[in-house]
Amino acid sequence: MITIYGMRASGNCYKLQLLLDQLGRDYRWVDVDSAHGETRTAAYLARNPNGKVPLLELEDGRLLAESDAILCFLAEGTAFWPQDPWLRAQTLQWLFFEQYSHEPCIAVARFIRNWLPPDHPRQAELPSLLQRGAQALAVMEQHLATRTWFVGERYGIADIALYAYTHCAGDGGFDLSAYPNIRAWLARVQAQPGYSPMQH
Amino acid sequence: MITIYGMRASGNCYKLQLLLDQLGRDYRWVDVDSAHGETRTAAYLARNPNGKVPLLELEDGRLLAESDAILCFLAEGTAFWPQDPWLRAQTLQWLFFEQYSHEPCIAVARFIRNWLPPDHPRQAELPSLLQRGAQALAVMEQHLATRTWFVGERYGIADIALYAYTHCAGDGGFDLSAYPNIRAWLARVQAQPGYSPMQH
Repeated sequence: MITIYGMRASGNCYKLQLLLDQLGRDYRWVDVDSAHGETRTAAYLARNPNGKVPLLELEDGRLLAESDAILCFLAEGTAFWPQDPWLRAQTLQWLFFEQYSHEPCIAVARFIRNWLPPDHPRQAELPSLLQRGAQALAVMEQHLATRTWFVGERYGIADIALYAYTHCAGDGGFDLSAYPNIRAWLARVQAQPGYSPMQH
Repeated sequence: MITIYGMRASGNCYKLQLLLDQLGRDYRWVDVDSAHGETRTAAYLARNPNGKVPLLELEDGRLLAESDAILCFLAEGTAFWPQDPWLRAQTLQWLFFEQYSHEPCIAVARFIRNWLPPDHPRQAELPSLLQRGAQALAVMEQHLATRTWFVGERYGIADIALYAYTHCAGDGGFDLSAYPNIRAWLARVQAQPGYSPMQH
């Protein structure tokens, strides 16, 4: 059986929970609290030198890091990750958008507001994160104006990757009431077979 | 013929120049100066709502953003992007590492030092960027201690993506003399057939 090393309240880790639950696939989950240093121990760094969760371990011990790379690997051969080269390219475009333009603002704002003390110096980052995160949400809102799903009119790993931190963007101080297309899409994701909520 | 919209001195754009030159493939290059607002015009945002370079345009007008997604698409069916699922997974792992843990430190430090005035408030970000960028370089240095290339002992798009901003990391204030494995790997990349340098 495969093993996921992850933190349940991390959106990057939740992506894998959601895909695996929707695939109906068995997996072992090992809690690793990255917010309290558990990804910086020598034992963990031996598994993932970049010191981050999630991490996938296969039955034979092979290891794979980076949430969106793991999504692609686990979705291979399923309807969540289409074979068509152009659909794959568009999926990868949204996965890289998620990790570069979305997560570093929306997830980091959530982390600062919910995991760091109110007098922590990183609180000063919030105004910039809220501004740049709103730009990412605006790109998504515009894209969803004429589409049901992010790629190819079929629910897939681009939706899963973007859902993870968008559905809890309020935790970071983002007001989703300004994004009706995003809110309707979030509800569509939640209505998908096998959907499982993030555990806070 | 395909078109690349890009800025020659941007590492993200240079990745595509390097791959296309190594593939010996013809392409049209349209200069877009993202450092001076040319990605924020209405005309450009109509092509890429996320307002970034590079952007790929196919002969039929289809558009693809995100440098590493474009690398995967252009390398499909070539030796630069192997078919084996595990090699693909590892390649994607390094591409996401590049966009999340490497580029936001090493490329941004280079941008701040070379494109912003010395009294710009973003100069204050440099100490943190240098610290986090050094962590990314340390992960690469360790990986290359026992390997010739990043994935599967064959030169490919993971190397191209990581080469783009690593070879000019000195522009951002990083001292590569502390990373002998990286320096040897940079020399191996430069010796590959079809290699073309970044145009500053």
